[in-house]
Amino acid sequence: MTGRLTDEERREAMASLPGWIAVEGRDAITRRFAFRDFSEAWGFMSRVALVAEAMDHHPEWFNVYKTVEVTLSTHDADGLTAKDVRLARAMDQIAGI
Amino acid sequence: MTGRLTDEERREAMASLPGWIAVEGRDAITRRFAFRDFSEAWGFMSRVALVAEAMDHHPEWFNVYKTVEVTLSTHDADGLTAKDVRLARAMDQIAGI
Repeated sequence: MTGRLTDEERREAMASLPGWIAVEGRDAITRRFAFRDFSEAWGFMSRVALVAEAMDHHPEWFNVYKTVEVTLSTHDADGLTAKDVRLARAMDQIAGI
Repeated sequence: MTGRLTDEERREAMASLPGWIAVEGRDAITRRFAFRDFSEAWGFMSRVALVAEAMDHHPEWFNVYKTVEVTLSTHDADGLTAKDVRLARAMDQIAGI
């Protein structure tokens, strides 16, 4: 099982993920991705879905047309873990950020 | 352009879509779909994405693991139209309901 990030790990993680912010009132991080249209947003989500399934770690995400709002947290650990950081990095990479 | 449903059309539409409910404070309908796992939820979303793109009418949807919460409304008409009813029916059909 993956444990929650320590304060030090959390600082390092957030420093390396400048587009992500902490969710208020919850040990989770969030980012809003904006694309050109639904096709591009869906392409992003499809690529992320494959990564998420392979990691067995899935995002909470909301899509409407060209925007995708993602929240990451680890249910089993009841908070932010290294898995969330890995998935956030993969999302940034897929989005070309 | 597709106009908002009349009261009569709305009653007929809702009667034909028993799993869908009106969103409070907004002219929109919503339904929560539950699947066995992420793979099945994603399969549903992928099939719906093709239909939505072909219709040029896209859902607002939230996914976490095996659940998909959908809200349908027509932005251009600022409310519920026949397009939403068609997309809701397509979603029910794809979900095997």
